[in-house]
Amino acid sequence: MRYLEAADHAEIYVPHGFPEETADLGEIRMNYAVAGDPDSPAMLLIPAQTESWWGYEAAMRLLANRFRVYAVDLRGQGRSTWTPGRYSLDIFGGDLVRFIDRVVGRPVVVSGLSSGGVIAAWLSAFAAPGQIRAAVYEDAPLFASQADPAVGPSIRQGVAPMFRLWHKWLGPQWSIGDFAGMRAAMGSEVPGWMLAALGRMAPAGTGGPPAGPPQDLLEYDPEWGDAFVSGRATVNCDHETMLRQVKVPVLFTHHFHHVDQDTGNLLGAITDLQLRRVRRLVEATGNSFSCRAFPEMPHSMHGHDPATYVETVTGWLDDQVPGVRSAW
Amino acid sequence: MRYLEAADHAEIYVPHGFPEETADLGEIRMNYAVAGDPDSPAMLLIPAQTESWWGYEAAMRLLANRFRVYAVDLRGQGRSTWTPGRYSLDIFGGDLVRFIDRVVGRPVVVSGLSSGGVIAAWLSAFAAPGQIRAAVYEDAPLFASQADPAVGPSIRQGVAPMFRLWHKWLGPQWSIGDFAGMRAAMGSEVPGWMLAALGRMAPAGTGGPPAGPPQDLLEYDPEWGDAFVSGRATVNCDHETMLRQVKVPVLFTHHFHHVDQDTGNLLGAITDLQLRRVRRLVEATGNSFSCRAFPEMPHSMHGHDPATYVETVTGWLDDQVPGVRSAW
Amino acid sequence: MRYLEAADHAEIYVPHGFPEETADLGEIRMNYAVAGDPDSPAMLLIPAQTESWWGYEAAMRLLANRFRVYAVDLRGQGRSTWTPGRYSLDIFGGDLVRFIDRVVGRPVVVSGLSSGGVIAAWLSAFAAPGQIRAAVYEDAPLFASQADPAVGPSIRQGVAPMFRLWHKWLGPQWSIGDFAGMRAAMGSEVPGWMLAALGRMAPAGTGGPPAGPPQDLLEYDPEWGDAFVSGRATVNCDHETMLRQVKVPVLFTHHFHHVDQDTGNLLGAITDLQLRRVRRLVEATGNSFSCRAFPEMPHSMHGHDPATYVETVTGWLDDQVPGVRSAW
Amino acid sequence: MRYLEAADHAEIYVPHGFPEETADLGEIRMNYAVAGDPDSPAMLLIPAQTESWWGYEAAMRLLANRFRVYAVDLRGQGRSTWTPGRYSLDIFGGDLVRFIDRVVGRPVVVSGLSSGGVIAAWLSAFAAPGQIRAAVYEDAPLFASQADPAVGPSIRQGVAPMFRLWHKWLGPQWSIGDFAGMRAAMGSEVPGWMLAALGRMAPAGTGGPPAGPPQDLLEYDPEWGDAFVSGRATVNCDHETMLRQVKVPVLFTHHFHHVDQDTGNLLGAITDLQLRRVRRLVEATGNSFSCRAFPEMPHSMHGHDPATYVETVTGWLDDQVPGVRSAW
Repeated sequence: MRYLEAADHAEIYVPHGFPEETADLGEIRMNYAVAGDPDSPAMLLIPAQTESWWGYEAAMRLLANRFRVYAVDLRGQGRSTWTPGRYSLDIFGGDLVRFIDRVVGRPVVVSGLSSGGVIAAWLSAFAAPGQIRAAVYEDAPLFASQADPAVGPSIRQGVAPMFRLWHKWLGPQWSIGDFAGMRAAMGSEVPGWMLAALGRMAPAGTGGPPAGPPQDLLEYDPEWGDAFVSGRATVNCDHETMLRQVKVPVLFTHHFHHVDQDTGNLLGAITDLQLRRVRRLVEATGNSFSCRAFPEMPHSMHGHDPATYVETVTGWLDDQVPGVRSAW
Repeated sequence: MRYLEAADHAEIYVPHGFPEETADLGEIRMNYAVAGDPDSPAMLLIPAQTESWWGYEAAMRLLANRFRVYAVDLRGQGRSTWTPGRYSLDIFGGDLVRFIDRVVGRPVVVSGLSSGGVIAAWLSAFAAPGQIRAAVYEDAPLFASQADPAVGPSIRQGVAPMFRLWHKWLGPQWSIGDFAGMRAAMGSEVPGWMLAALGRMAPAGTGGPPAGPPQDLLEYDPEWGDAFVSGRATVNCDHETMLRQVKVPVLFTHHFHHVDQDTGNLLGAITDLQLRRVRRLVEATGNSFSCRAFPEMPHSMHGHDPATYVETVTGWLDDQVPGVRSAW
Repeated sequence: MRYLEAADHAEIYVPHGFPEETADLGEIRMNYAVAGDPDSPAMLLIPAQTESWWGYEAAMRLLANRFRVYAVDLRGQGRSTWTPGRYSLDIFGGDLVRFIDRVVGRPVVVSGLSSGGVIAAWLSAFAAPGQIRAAVYEDAPLFASQADPAVGPSIRQGVAPMFRLWHKWLGPQWSIGDFAGMRAAMGSEVPGWMLAALGRMAPAGTGGPPAGPPQDLLEYDPEWGDAFVSGRATVNCDHETMLRQVKVPVLFTHHFHHVDQDTGNLLGAITDLQLRRVRRLVEATGNSFSCRAFPEMPHSMHGHDPATYVETVTGWLDDQVPGVRSAW
Repeated sequence: MRYLEAADHAEIYVPHGFPEETADLGEIRMNYAVAGDPDSPAMLLIPAQTESWWGYEAAMRLLANRFRVYAVDLRGQGRSTWTPGRYSLDIFGGDLVRFIDRVVGRPVVVSGLSSGGVIAAWLSAFAAPGQIRAAVYEDAPLFASQADPAVGPSIRQGVAPMFRLWHKWLGPQWSIGDFAGMRAAMGSEVPGWMLAALGRMAPAGTGGPPAGPPQDLLEYDPEWGDAFVSGRATVNCDHETMLRQVKVPVLFTHHFHHVDQDTGNLLGAITDLQLRRVRRLVEATGNSFSCRAFPEMPHSMHGHDPATYVETVTGWLDDQVPGVRSAW
């Protein structure tokens, strides 16, 4: 297996509203975009598992009024290096420790969605001293993305069938790429409760799934999902251990979620019980933990309703992290 | 590591109310006791994880009126062979397939408690044709004894801390045997919710845990528990897959259980949600599934209240498995 | 995932020189063929990982003069049931314990090739008392098919890339079946040393690999190989532990094998060092261990040179297991 | 499980010849000592698995003439934080990336022994750009410390029994601490070939093992060894993948090693075959790979013969990394 550079996939990429830059972090080259005044407080945005940095494009436009915003592609996402055999929370987190040191150069507010929110939690616990000012966990599957969590449903009881489907039919590093086969197999390999829910959440008027792979899936290494489903990604980073080390104020936004009473399966990122454990563990560190419930909100608030996302994050910062206005 | 025979431990054993016999099953020698008329219908009793066959002594006296009863020590229990590195559901089950063929020689009603109930489920799904007539799962931790179950809490969210404690301080094959150290460590290595519950369940007037190891723990290979906690025991025997293959009528007795609202931890064998999944999977096979709830009953009904246990099992058999009265 | 019966695949099968029969073993239905006089001594033949019973057809014709020969399809092979999630040495072995009890009904000489030879070793160690008379391990990858063996190269250092290729492109239960994609990927996913060797071993004049899947691969569940590569198949059956329990005389035939001096990779079934450990462990049990080296022989002697195979096996039996001639 | 700080163990430590300092790296506090002129080129020394920084004391005195030397305690060693559940190559490596950035502040020559040598390899492959100038792998168990390596013997075929012994009898974080029990169990839990070799290597005239735990073992978290034996420490860091990314010149010193012809077990750090693979992988990166064989040298050259160690390292640097003399 070899390391893959963006050049290998050049033909798949499309232009976006902000220019992209690349940082050499040693093991990988990290692709990112920046917006906002260089003198504004710094904010680091971490996309979800099948999202690239440009999922934040609309939010960045709004945030740029107050922040110097950095949105990144993690390894295995977008134009950053794909690294077979090397996807784990500690590795993702280590990349961002370097990125903050080398590219941002000062403390950041970090905000991540989904797996990106788990990595935001990793940074809030394990980053180098002084790197993180505050952390936003946007609908982050704490516990729920582990194979054997301390509390609540495991990834098997949630999103695993979809990750397995992608990995099986697209292959690690898209080495198979059988998108048509994948669509044909959905009915038999993804459980009914998940298909039904995905159908309900489809945008009105779209009349069904897309004919070809969506752009963000094209830019995503399906080995990512396998690393989580198999437990490799978290084997040395139990979330309970991690959350006991949080060192900054935390905002959690909890979006639509539903536990199927019939199967116990979780549709959504995290259950109420799991979130209560997150709260208790963070509060036990002496840091403030704020939670905002958006029971109707899709998984990506920053994508679906960027104004509310920005208002929520900035409102919380004004309230809980007053220093964010002054010079960091 | 070597295989251990009862002779290695001869000094630890104590006499019991029924004579013990030994069957050579190839890999192991299985210790067992028999009661009842040889012409009565056959019943096979499978003890719980830290129980030996004689946990059924009182129940056997009652059952002997109607059944030829066989109570066994599984490998790693009592006087049966201890087998380092070789404890899994498929291995335990395979031993009993041989035992039924070679010692019993005709179909059995099988009844097992706890892990023994999971093995009863294994037999009801995977035994040789004609071996099993009906199956009783006495407070069996289906799903809840897996490391990553299809539904509900994993073993980590339940009994795992106790199994880890035994394995750490007593060692595989009791190779450490530091019972005093184990008692001293309970306060720090077993979570509070579990300790509190164990305290509440202690027999009235006993004033604390025993000074020395209880007899059933002495007769138990602590590697058993490690095989479950690590997931080795179930890695090739997912309970959902197993229950889809059930081939006989099933009675489930559901005893005291409590899901801590604060932690989500399960005190008891199985949650209501998990039991609903068991029901659905068994019913989908076309076999009858009866469930009796005993919300105040300790884990071992056959030990704590043998009369109710025997009445429940025989009443169900009379009702659901009428052929049990006639010659099998 | 569901259990698969032969009927699901009926269209893929082809007729063979002996009639096929089916035995219901409880969890699976086992397909097999029989030859020879019912009064002759019984012999059980276990095919290799991507072989079905009919790989023994020519050998059966020769053996039938002296033996009642049973050649089986293991679960996941040929017309026997395919069992997702349930492929391990203990499970394969347990099937054959039942088969010997229910179909053969008396002691057998067991002979298996490759993975089938490892299962022959399992039977020689763990079968029920009196089932096995003697065991032939035909080029069996003892140790070399484990993920982390006690001695010598692991499966990763040998055949794993081929098993991974099959599993990735054909899918569990042939659920992908992209044979063309598999052929195209061989150059990049199978290491050069293995491709070169496979090329050297191709039949003269064939001019390349077949245009479509060979019949034996069609009849094989690719999840088998994944169970070995991942270590699931052997996690509870370490070969060192197993071989310490051997209870009958053993013949090992050691065929072509080559350890690449440059990479340490094993081409073939087992190294000389590993075989020495097999010998020592078996001899320590007090049973005779005979080894015959055939350094030019392809992996399947029974397929490539059935006469030599039959002569070797019968000669050894005459010499080491004299009772084989008399009434068993 | 909680994080442990040096203060918890304060009573076990002893004074050494260089003053110790502590760096806050975020997740852990790292203990280290410094010697030499601040203007000299920087060198980072990484001790072996059961060594603390002061194993380098004598070597530091010699190196201080030419280098600014930093010798560290890794997490789980010496006075650095012990981190239950969090020992892996990527985590160890990430700590040192921060240490170099925050404490050293300029490029280093890195030299590590044994597991420390593997971490030196990690840094040579994965550190941030500009951090590493050159790397010395002192008798590093590349491949041989993995559970399922690409080439040659696994840790099971080498040092694993000793690591298991420590973990079993001393416990994670020395939570058992039964040193007497450990000594009594050595005869049965450590294989004869390893005991014999340890006996041969005992210092002349010592007449046996020490009465109490050696100081370096007291300062070592036995969970370290379990993380390697179980494979957790390397599951996301296959050595073949890592070595393909090396970015600097490498010196390997290969000390006493012996492959037992009878068992195939490795006594020592790495076999010749494994070392050839290291060479090929490093050379394929375009970097120079120098190897010096010291067939009589014990595992720690820097401890046993500091003069030769220093001479070897500096000689190689003068020869292969000429820039080391000038201003970095």
